[in-house]
Amino acid sequence: MENIALLLSYDGKNYHGWQKQNNAVSVQQTLEQAAKTLFGCDVDIVGCGRTDAGVHAINYVANFKVETKIPQDKLAFALNALLPNDIRVKQAQFVSKDFHSRFDVLKKRYIYKIYNFPINDVFLLGRAWHVKYPLDIEKMKSAAYMFLGEHDFAAFRSTGTDTKTSVRTIYDLSVSKNGNEIVVDICADGFLYNMVRIISGTLVYVGCGKIDYRDVSKIIESCDRRLAGITAPPDGLYMHSVLYDDKFGISWS
Amino acid sequence: MENIALLLSYDGKNYHGWQKQNNAVSVQQTLEQAAKTLFGCDVDIVGCGRTDAGVHAINYVANFKVETKIPQDKLAFALNALLPNDIRVKQAQFVSKDFHSRFDVLKKRYIYKIYNFPINDVFLLGRAWHVKYPLDIEKMKSAAYMFLGEHDFAAFRSTGTDTKTSVRTIYDLSVSKNGNEIVVDICADGFLYNMVRIISGTLVYVGCGKIDYRDVSKIIESCDRRLAGITAPPDGLYMHSVLYDDKFGISWS
Repeated sequence: MENIALLLSYDGKNYHGWQKQNNAVSVQQTLEQAAKTLFGCDVDIVGCGRTDAGVHAINYVANFKVETKIPQDKLAFALNALLPNDIRVKQAQFVSKDFHSRFDVLKKRYIYKIYNFPINDVFLLGRAWHVKYPLDIEKMKSAAYMFLGEHDFAAFRSTGTDTKTSVRTIYDLSVSKNGNEIVVDICADGFLYNMVRIISGTLVYVGCGKIDYRDVSKIIESCDRRLAGITAPPDGLYMHSVLYDDKFGISWS
Repeated sequence: MENIALLLSYDGKNYHGWQKQNNAVSVQQTLEQAAKTLFGCDVDIVGCGRTDAGVHAINYVANFKVETKIPQDKLAFALNALLPNDIRVKQAQFVSKDFHSRFDVLKKRYIYKIYNFPINDVFLLGRAWHVKYPLDIEKMKSAAYMFLGEHDFAAFRSTGTDTKTSVRTIYDLSVSKNGNEIVVDICADGFLYNMVRIISGTLVYVGCGKIDYRDVSKIIESCDRRLAGITAPPDGLYMHSVLYDDKFGISWS
């Protein structure tokens, strides 16, 4: 029995998120169908986390166990031949038996893209949040700084999941601007439901003056969802990458 | 009667090119419908050139004449409110009466995007030509140099149009690589039908060794379409910009 880790990329536009569900096409289900065709048996694919409908992935990690004689270096091509174009297996690797792509996450990184100009960019439809009014990038950067470190992020969580604790540690959070494109880049030990989108929505509220950047620490301390900004739309969200312990032998080239 | 110039951007994926036609949705027709709704009369919109089905535009110029009291600075927003999201009017301007967006073109610039890696980038589907085999960028650059200047480009034209002469002047032609993305950037006084796509296809043939870069001058001189490379797919082609004489008073900000 091999434990196979996949490095995936997908455009979330046509999927109802990662997670399998009734009456909607998910990335997980689409992958499991391709794997079933390839290996000739049912395969349960574990993902590194949920992504919502419309959310994209640049480097998503999943794993599954299967009996196979297909060599490691043929797996990505074999799966890609069975997958729709908007999901690609970038790499596939045999990893240690005890590796679990969700439980073993050490750090996750997301980016959130905002297009900040009165008229939208046609090439960013479904791929960025179009914010028409001008945003003060310096205020957004000042606010970003306050999220760093270990906090109870209950104010930045949507209801609908039952995680034990809402304490998370944000290692990095940067806001950068290139032309009309603003990118929020955030790395943490884990994220609550909609946490990146609520942080991004709060940063946009800071950028347009609806929230004073000096109040962000107080909003975090309040643990009150109503004080934070809106949940930014899924379009701009990209799972960027996932980090695991070296002991699992994952080495994406 | 105002002569209105539009600076447009569109994602060509959902359109059967610029030009109006029966039984297929074109960008021109979509714009004319929006203009008819806005101005309350039929409007003939002239474009700076044809683009094929699936070809994109970053800065396309069109113009039309209409009686209107809508101020210049409201036109783009008014038209955008009536247009689908994948076509945007970036700017609109009242210009001199005799300006014609096609006849008055001095220079046109196109870019052609290639994604050169065995596994495609999901975010470039329909937006770049996926070339799986490795391309030698240095040979492509050497070949690019041979296209410069005035030549009869009959070998780089598809049949189906009846232009008087196939002589054109290429002012600039560069090939650059950034990560796995290769961009062909080409500026000329005008282009024959499919000329940018055949030049790009020829450069890819040079890059993979099907055509020796030293033969490119001979291929140009031959005026024989069969000696050039394939017509690259429309997906990677973007009309980048159009240049006019200053006398028309066009000044995109």
